[in-house]
Amino acid sequence: MAKAFMDRDFILNSETAKILYHNYAAKMPIIDYHCHLIPKEIWEDRRFKNITEVWLGGDHYKWRLMRANGVDEKYITGDASDKEKFFKFAETLEKCIGNPVFQWSHLELRRFFGYEGVLNSKTSEEVWNLCNAKLAEPGFTARGMMKMSNVKLVCTTDDPIDSLEYHEKIKADESFDITVIPAWRPDKVVNIEKPEFAAYVKKLGEAAGVEIACLNCVKKALKNRMDFFAAHGCSVADHGIEYAPCVPTSFEIANAVFKKAYAGEAVTAEEIAQYKTYILGFFGEEYADRGWVMQLHYGCKRNNNERMFAKLGPDTGYDCILNGAPGPQLADFLNMLDKENKLPKTIIYSLDPNDNAVIETIMGCFQDSTAVGKIQHASAWWFNDHKDGMEAQMKSLANEGVLGNFIGMLTDSRSFLSYPRHEYFRRIMCNLIAGFVENGEYPWDEELLGRIVQDISYNNAKRYFGF
Amino acid sequence: MAKAFMDRDFILNSETAKILYHNYAAKMPIIDYHCHLIPKEIWEDRRFKNITEVWLGGDHYKWRLMRANGVDEKYITGDASDKEKFFKFAETLEKCIGNPVFQWSHLELRRFFGYEGVLNSKTSEEVWNLCNAKLAEPGFTARGMMKMSNVKLVCTTDDPIDSLEYHEKIKADESFDITVIPAWRPDKVVNIEKPEFAAYVKKLGEAAGVEIACLNCVKKALKNRMDFFAAHGCSVADHGIEYAPCVPTSFEIANAVFKKAYAGEAVTAEEIAQYKTYILGFFGEEYADRGWVMQLHYGCKRNNNERMFAKLGPDTGYDCILNGAPGPQLADFLNMLDKENKLPKTIIYSLDPNDNAVIETIMGCFQDSTAVGKIQHASAWWFNDHKDGMEAQMKSLANEGVLGNFIGMLTDSRSFLSYPRHEYFRRIMCNLIAGFVENGEYPWDEELLGRIVQDISYNNAKRYFGF
Amino acid sequence: MAKAFMDRDFILNSETAKILYHNYAAKMPIIDYHCHLIPKEIWEDRRFKNITEVWLGGDHYKWRLMRANGVDEKYITGDASDKEKFFKFAETLEKCIGNPVFQWSHLELRRFFGYEGVLNSKTSEEVWNLCNAKLAEPGFTARGMMKMSNVKLVCTTDDPIDSLEYHEKIKADESFDITVIPAWRPDKVVNIEKPEFAAYVKKLGEAAGVEIACLNCVKKALKNRMDFFAAHGCSVADHGIEYAPCVPTSFEIANAVFKKAYAGEAVTAEEIAQYKTYILGFFGEEYADRGWVMQLHYGCKRNNNERMFAKLGPDTGYDCILNGAPGPQLADFLNMLDKENKLPKTIIYSLDPNDNAVIETIMGCFQDSTAVGKIQHASAWWFNDHKDGMEAQMKSLANEGVLGNFIGMLTDSRSFLSYPRHEYFRRIMCNLIAGFVENGEYPWDEELLGRIVQDISYNNAKRYFGF
Repeated sequence: MAKAFMDRDFILNSETAKILYHNYAAKMPIIDYHCHLIPKEIWEDRRFKNITEVWLGGDHYKWRLMRANGVDEKYITGDASDKEKFFKFAETLEKCIGNPVFQWSHLELRRFFGYEGVLNSKTSEEVWNLCNAKLAEPGFTARGMMKMSNVKLVCTTDDPIDSLEYHEKIKADESFDITVIPAWRPDKVVNIEKPEFAAYVKKLGEAAGVEIACLNCVKKALKNRMDFFAAHGCSVADHGIEYAPCVPTSFEIANAVFKKAYAGEAVTAEEIAQYKTYILGFFGEEYADRGWVMQLHYGCKRNNNERMFAKLGPDTGYDCILNGAPGPQLADFLNMLDKENKLPKTIIYSLDPNDNAVIETIMGCFQDSTAVGKIQHASAWWFNDHKDGMEAQMKSLANEGVLGNFIGMLTDSRSFLSYPRHEYFRRIMCNLIAGFVENGEYPWDEELLGRIVQDISYNNAKRYFGF
Repeated sequence: MAKAFMDRDFILNSETAKILYHNYAAKMPIIDYHCHLIPKEIWEDRRFKNITEVWLGGDHYKWRLMRANGVDEKYITGDASDKEKFFKFAETLEKCIGNPVFQWSHLELRRFFGYEGVLNSKTSEEVWNLCNAKLAEPGFTARGMMKMSNVKLVCTTDDPIDSLEYHEKIKADESFDITVIPAWRPDKVVNIEKPEFAAYVKKLGEAAGVEIACLNCVKKALKNRMDFFAAHGCSVADHGIEYAPCVPTSFEIANAVFKKAYAGEAVTAEEIAQYKTYILGFFGEEYADRGWVMQLHYGCKRNNNERMFAKLGPDTGYDCILNGAPGPQLADFLNMLDKENKLPKTIIYSLDPNDNAVIETIMGCFQDSTAVGKIQHASAWWFNDHKDGMEAQMKSLANEGVLGNFIGMLTDSRSFLSYPRHEYFRRIMCNLIAGFVENGEYPWDEELLGRIVQDISYNNAKRYFGF
Repeated sequence: MAKAFMDRDFILNSETAKILYHNYAAKMPIIDYHCHLIPKEIWEDRRFKNITEVWLGGDHYKWRLMRANGVDEKYITGDASDKEKFFKFAETLEKCIGNPVFQWSHLELRRFFGYEGVLNSKTSEEVWNLCNAKLAEPGFTARGMMKMSNVKLVCTTDDPIDSLEYHEKIKADESFDITVIPAWRPDKVVNIEKPEFAAYVKKLGEAAGVEIACLNCVKKALKNRMDFFAAHGCSVADHGIEYAPCVPTSFEIANAVFKKAYAGEAVTAEEIAQYKTYILGFFGEEYADRGWVMQLHYGCKRNNNERMFAKLGPDTGYDCILNGAPGPQLADFLNMLDKENKLPKTIIYSLDPNDNAVIETIMGCFQDSTAVGKIQHASAWWFNDHKDGMEAQMKSLANEGVLGNFIGMLTDSRSFLSYPRHEYFRRIMCNLIAGFVENGEYPWDEELLGRIVQDISYNNAKRYFGF
C-alpha cells in the first residue's frame, strides 16, 4: 500500500525532482575525488570470492551495526565462516530502519547484482547464492565494477613515500580508460607527537633522496615528493587533523621543535601546535603555488576502545566525532595563508554536523576570484553521510553561499561497490533543489536547473580540480 | 477546514503510520523505567482535590510557561486560590502553540477526563468543573490513573539511604499488580563539592551499618545498600552529572580527597574530578558485576535564578541546558570501564540537543555482544521532550545505529497523569518509521515493522532491563 | 508544471497558512525595532541613481555571494561601472538556489518595482533598465520606500555621542508620519581592549559635558547621554559582544582597570572581562530603571580576512560565526542583574544557530511578571536570517516557551528596500503555525490564531517596547 521500496523514484518526491534526476543528473559520469581504493587491486583487477569478502571484509560501518545488534565479534572480524558472517549481517540489517547502510546495501544489490528484493533474515540464503554466482561471472572484478558505475576518474589516498608503481602501471594500461590519480596525504609528517614520527621522517628522506638534518631538509624532501606526485597527475592533497591549528611561529622555533622530536625527545602541547601550524602553513603555500587543492578533514577522535584496539588495530569501527572544534582557529589558519596570497583552493570537512553553519560563514570570508567556489564545504562526511546529513550540509551551503558551485559527492570508500552513493547523493540533491522550486522559492527553468544539477553531479568537480 | 485537533490520527500522517500505531504500538503496555513518582503516594493511593493540585502542584514545565506569559508568581507558586491558578494557566496555554505542554495537557484531558474540547480562557470554567468532578469519582487516584494507562512496571528514583518501606508495602499488596521497583540514585555520594556531602556520607554509613573512616568504608556501605536495593528488585542506577568526568586516579589519591572533604576541608577542582572519576568508576564496575543498567544524565545547569532559589528552592523551573559537553571525556570514561571488562549496560542522556550525533558515535565504539543494544541513547530528555526533540533523537539513532533495538520512552515525571507521553512518543515513532517506508527507504513488511514498533514501545525495554 | 515562483501563496503550503497570512498578518503595519538606516538619508529623503547603488552599494550579503562565484573584486567594491557590477550580480544570483538573497531580491523586484520575472544573466539588461526607470520616478526615495512598505516606526542604531540632529529634524517634520527613534549602542565604551577606547571616552565626556577622570565620571556622562536619548524617544539599547561576560567585580577594581586603559596602558584578559562585566551590569541596571529594552548580540568573529580588511575596512563581508558561546556565562550575567531586581527586558541574539535551545532554556529562568515575555529570543539573526533559520528559531521558541508572545521580525538592515523581509518572515511564521494546525497539534480557531499572528507581526512589539 505504501510507496514501493527503492523504486525508480526513490527519494524523488515531486515531478520536478524526477525530471531533474532522471533527465539530467543520472546521466552524468562519476568523478570520485576522494576515496581509499587500493591501486594494486585496480591494477590486478581483483576478484572477490563471495559477498562477505566484498561487503564485510573491511567495512567498519557494517561492523558497528552488527556490534550494536549484540553480534559476537567471532561473526564480525573473527573466525566464523563467511556464510555465517553474512547471515548475522542480514539479521542485523533488517532492524536498521533509516540507516544509510540499509540503503547503500540495497542500492548495491540492485545496481550490481540485479536483486530487487529485500535482504533480511528470511532471504539471506537466496541473496548469498545470488551474489556469489554473480561474483563468479566475467566482469565482476574491481575494474568491472568501476566501469559498470560509469566512473571517469578516481583519486586514491597515498603516502608521500609511496612508489606510485601501481598508478604508473594503470596509466600505462591502454585497455583501461578510467583515470586513477594519487592524492597526497602527508599526515605522518604532520603528526609530530606520534612515536613513529622520527622513523617515518627518515624513510621520507630516503624516498626523496635527501639526508634529513633539519626542517629545511624535510621541506626539501616533501617538495621532491610533491614533484614526483605531480608528475603522476596529482593535484589534490588531504590532511586529517584534530582541529585546524593556529599558533603561528617562526622557522627557527618550528625547526627546534622538529629537531627535538626527530631526536626522540618529548615535545610539549604548545610545541606540537607550533610545529603543526608551521608545517601545514608550508603545505598550504606549496599547494597554492602548484595549483593543488587542499582538503582539511577534522573533528574525529580515533581508537576510543583500547580493548578492541589491542585486538584489531585502527580503522575497525571505534572512532567517534570530536566535538567542540574551535571555529576561530580555522578562520585564523586560513587567514594566515590568505594574507600572504598563499591560500590554495580548500575543501573543508568536519565530522561534527554542528559545524555546518560555522564552516559556511568562515568560507565566505576567503572566497575570491582566483577560483569559482574557491573554498568548498565538502559533502557530508562519514558519520554524516546519510540523507539527513547531506540535506543539512546542502541546506546550510544554500543558505550561506552559492549552491550552484558545489563540487558535490565523493565516496571516501575502500570498496569497489560504493559508487551508488553518488546516485544516492544525486537523488537527494535533485529532491532538495526541486523542493525549492515546489515551494515557490526558485523558478522552474528546466535548462538552468538541469545544468546546475549536472554541474553539481560532475562538471563543477571537473573544473575545480582541473581534471 | 484543517485537520481535526488531536483526533484518532493525531501525528499519524500516512496510512502506514496509522496501521503501525493503531494495530501495533497502541496495544502495548507501558514500562516507565525512569520516573519520579513518590512510592508513598502509590501506597496510599493518593487522591487529588482538584485539577490544579494534579497539574500545577509541582510541574515546573507549566510554571515556566506562566512566567513567560507575565503571570504573577502569586498565581503560580503563591497564595492565590487553586481556581485562580488554573484560570491563569488556561490563559497562558492558548498562546503556547507548538509547546509539548499544550499537547500533553490535551492528551490528559482526553484520556483521563474524556474532555474532547480545547482548554483556553473561554473554557476554563467548564474544564475546571469537569475535571474536578471526575477527580471525585471512584478510581481517580494514583493507582487508578496508573491502571487506566495500562502500566506494567515503573522504576522510581531513590536515594541509597531510603528505607524502601513503601516499595515493600506495595509489593506485599496483592490487590495491586503493577510492579514498582526502586532505582538507585547515589548523586549525593558523588557530589563531593556540596556542603552537605560529609553529613550525607555519615547518614549513608548509618543506613548501611558501616562506620565511615575512609573511602573503602564508603564503598562497603554502598555495596551493602546495593545489595539491599537488589533485594527489592532494583536493577537500574541513575547518575545526574554535569559532564562525564575522566581524570583517572589511584585509590590512594581518591581516598585522600575523600578524607579531606569528609573532614570538611576544601577540595580543588582537580581533586573533585579525580574523586568523581574514581567513584563513578567504582559504580560502573559494581553495575557491570550485578548486571545493572547505568543511566548517565548530563548537561544541566541548575538553580540559575538566585532570587527565586532563595524563595522556592530547587526544581522550581530555574534550570537550563549546560552546553559544551566535552564528548572526549564521555568516550574516555566509557573506555576506562570497558578496558577492564567492566562496562555495564549504559543509557546516555544529554540535555543539549547538539550532542545527539556525538553520543551516537561514542556509543558505537562500545557496543558488544554482552547485550543487544548494550549502550543506549535515551529518548529525548526534559527540554527536548517534544516532537522535534524526539524526532531528532530517533533520526540520529537511525542514522548511526540500529533503531530497531531502541528501548524507547520514559516519562521522567512526578505526575500520575503523564503516561499519555508514551502515546505521544509512540505516535511520533510510528510516524517517523512510516516516513521511511513512505519515502521508499524501507520496504513495507507489516509483520516485521509491526514487531519493531512493538519492540520499541515495550519489548526492548523488558528484555534490556531484564524485567 | 511546478508551483509558480513567488506567487501570491509563496511559502504558504496549506489553506490554513493562506488564511492566516492573507487575512491577518499581511495587513499589519511594520515596526522595525532594530535597523541600521542612516537618519540623515531619511531626513534628506535620499534618491538612488540606479539599482546598483541601492542593492550593491553596501550590502555585504550580496558581495559575499559574488566572491563565492569567483567574481573579481573590481566588480564588487572596485571601479567597474555600476552596470557591469549589476550584471555580475545577476550572473551570480541565478546559481544561488535556496539563498535568502535570491528571495529577498525577487521580493524587492516585485513589491517595489513591479517586476514579476526572474533576474538572471538573460534578463539583467531588462531589469537594469526597468529598475532605473522606476528609481527616477517621483516617490522612489528613502521616505517613499518606507511609506510603500507600511512602516509605522523604525529604531536606528546610534552612538551615545551622536547629536541626534536628524532625529530631531525628522520628528519636527509634520509631512512625514513614520516614527524614527534612536537606539542606544554604546559598544565603544564597553570595548576597553580597542586602541581607540581612550580617545572615544574623551569624546563621550565632551558630548556629555563631563570631565572624565574616573569610571564614575564615565557613568555620569553615560547617564547624561541616556537622558538625552530618552528625550528623543529612545527606549531600546543594543550591545554587540563576543559572549556575555561574567566576572563580577567591585567598582574599585573596575575603576582601576578603566584608569589603566584610559591612560593608554595595557589591560589583561581578566581585567577586560571584569571591566566589561561591570559596565554591562551598569547599563543593565540603568535600562531596568528607565524601562528600556536591552538587546544582546553575541557570537560574531569580525574582520577575519586581514588582506581585505586592509583594503576595505570593516563590515565588508569578512565576518563569521564565533562558535562555542558559553551558556553558563549568559545565565550568570542575567542572574547578576536579576538578583538585584535590576534585570531589564532583554532580547538575546546569538549568531550561532546551535545556541537556540540553550537560549530558550536560559530565558525561561528569568521570566517574570514585570513584563509579558520579558526575556525574548530574537528572530533569526544575520547568517540565520533565512527560512531554515527562522523556522528553527520559532520551533525552538515554541518548544520551550510561549510562541504567542514573540515580538517578531526586525531587518537589521542598512537598506530602504529591506521591508519585504517582514513579509518573508510573516509568511514563514504563518506557514509554521498553520503546520501545527494541519498536523492536529493545535486546534483551528480563526479568531484566536488570527489574533496571535497579528500579535507576532506587530502588536507584541508595540506593547513590549511601549511604542
